[in-house]
Amino acid sequence: MKLKSNTPLKNDLFLRAAKGEKVERVPVWLMRQAGRILPQYRALRNSLSGFKELVETPELACEVTLQPIDELEVDAAIIFSDILVIPEAMGLPYEMVEKRGPHFPKTIQTLEDVNALKIAEANDIAYTIEAIKLTKKELNGRVPLIGFAGAPWTIFAYMIEGGGSKTFSKAKGQLYKDPNLSHQLLEKITQSTIVYLKGQIEAGADLVQVFDSWAGILSPTQYAAFALPYIQKICDAIDEVPVTVFAKGAYFARPAVGELNCSVVGVDWNMDIKETRQIIPHKTLQGNLDPCQLYAPLSEVKKATQTMLEQFGGQKHIANLGHGVYPDTPLDSVKCFVDTVKEYSFS
Amino acid sequence: MKLKSNTPLKNDLFLRAAKGEKVERVPVWLMRQAGRILPQYRALRNSLSGFKELVETPELACEVTLQPIDELEVDAAIIFSDILVIPEAMGLPYEMVEKRGPHFPKTIQTLEDVNALKIAEANDIAYTIEAIKLTKKELNGRVPLIGFAGAPWTIFAYMIEGGGSKTFSKAKGQLYKDPNLSHQLLEKITQSTIVYLKGQIEAGADLVQVFDSWAGILSPTQYAAFALPYIQKICDAIDEVPVTVFAKGAYFARPAVGELNCSVVGVDWNMDIKETRQIIPHKTLQGNLDPCQLYAPLSEVKKATQTMLEQFGGQKHIANLGHGVYPDTPLDSVKCFVDTVKEYSFS
Repeated sequence: MKLKSNTPLKNDLFLRAAKGEKVERVPVWLMRQAGRILPQYRALRNSLSGFKELVETPELACEVTLQPIDELEVDAAIIFSDILVIPEAMGLPYEMVEKRGPHFPKTIQTLEDVNALKIAEANDIAYTIEAIKLTKKELNGRVPLIGFAGAPWTIFAYMIEGGGSKTFSKAKGQLYKDPNLSHQLLEKITQSTIVYLKGQIEAGADLVQVFDSWAGILSPTQYAAFALPYIQKICDAIDEVPVTVFAKGAYFARPAVGELNCSVVGVDWNMDIKETRQIIPHKTLQGNLDPCQLYAPLSEVKKATQTMLEQFGGQKHIANLGHGVYPDTPLDSVKCFVDTVKEYSFS
Repeated sequence: MKLKSNTPLKNDLFLRAAKGEKVERVPVWLMRQAGRILPQYRALRNSLSGFKELVETPELACEVTLQPIDELEVDAAIIFSDILVIPEAMGLPYEMVEKRGPHFPKTIQTLEDVNALKIAEANDIAYTIEAIKLTKKELNGRVPLIGFAGAPWTIFAYMIEGGGSKTFSKAKGQLYKDPNLSHQLLEKITQSTIVYLKGQIEAGADLVQVFDSWAGILSPTQYAAFALPYIQKICDAIDEVPVTVFAKGAYFARPAVGELNCSVVGVDWNMDIKETRQIIPHKTLQGNLDPCQLYAPLSEVKKATQTMLEQFGGQKHIANLGHGVYPDTPLDSVKCFVDTVKEYSFS
């Protein structure tokens, strides 16, 4: 594994922790830190026609990626984009419907639908690649930049279901009904994702995170058959930078996730910290404060953050929430979380 | 624990398994068996003004409760009702919005709101009590009748949030923001639930199940503080009939759920059967086929059901899905599931 470095990093805490190196203090960032929690994001977003304009305009994506670095002084930036750029690049476009979430006018139903999809090239998502280059330049080495993609099962779920769902029962049903179609689609998504992540790394991403947001709704058997092997292919294909795998809700898969060829494992707020550390002793863990904890009074936010830090123990840990920060979280609470991590000293 | 018996049961497999007694074969029923999977339900439902008419008319509730007994020949009936009758009886009415789910025009925001609520009396939900009496009479001892209620945290979640939600972040936030208000509301819900369940038992329910549908979104700490103690109060208050506790998603709470004063523990499809049996060695377990498994070809449904049965081992097991059956499940698959359980013989 080789760390790409155009401009040397001034703050490389996040990357060192990701690689399991000893750090002076625990690095901290938040999933969805570039978003509605920031007044400057809301102002920009309200001036635009829609969410996708932000994703597809490199200058704007760069601007919102930098906002939390300025405002929160977190230890890593994550490129502003969306996991659904992959299906779109493969030939299945989506719309982002205000207050309702993503919607695919056409979904994958048959093997012909799968065959009609292409393997995405990095060029098909040139706006994000460009945004990464711009952001790396603007960051000028302040903090590392995280690239990302959805895990194949999660992307599959949207392509079959056509949008968000509580149960994703159509997508899950497809795995049971037609394993052959499912594997072919998952393979195509995987190949596209590898190409895309390599493009992000080439453009300057210092680490890439794979988000398996809907991991937790699969049975252990299905997760082992339809999700893990494809994440494994991605991990095995990426050796340029460290990889983080976040399989939200898949507590049952922790032993297997711990064996993946990745450096960091995401931990959600349901997962007991000490138990997870026992299951995954050698990798860096990232997480895991309950995002709802940030609705508490500041004194409680501070206390809960300290308890979390203490339980992770100070090394091989990247502080984060156990899921993306909720859009209506008070900014002061987010700052309290970040500052508590940065000020904490292990006795 | 004393089994109420007006008419002696012709098929008491379910109750004997619930009490941990040795059975000749594994009993089987499905959560949401009285519902859209049955053509006779859909026909009746389409002739009515809305879902609540069905819940609030004892003759109709009785009719749909009996439908799966006739059509599927399952080993238990569950009274047709809704967990949200409790908030309504406490003074917080809800509407059932077609294709969107429940909606509370008013939600609980302040301590005054909590104080304005009453402790429900069984009479406030007289339609369900009446439906149970009617159903017991109509069943004439064919199979036992299950009563039910939502667990206090799940009911609380709807009363604060005002409807369904992926994150229930308002409700969870309330626990963090105002533990005092939260405990007062949870206590009132608990008292109402105990009264209501006792009313159901008095009317003839042979077992009561407590559904904690949103257990899995709480952190282990919050579940221990705000959910379990109230379920425990309910379990401790009910000694007339066996109690089933289904804390969906709360895998982390299994050791504590296993210690509750209840006879049966529900197991969702994420939970590994052997691991759960190790954690909860002495109680009857109920579950846990993935509801999406029923979208598979019949041969696969059969195989997966047999594998599940084998893993549970044939005693101290009530076969069920790991969640309510999905409304668009093919009836033949449901029958295949039920018949496979009934025909299976342990070697």
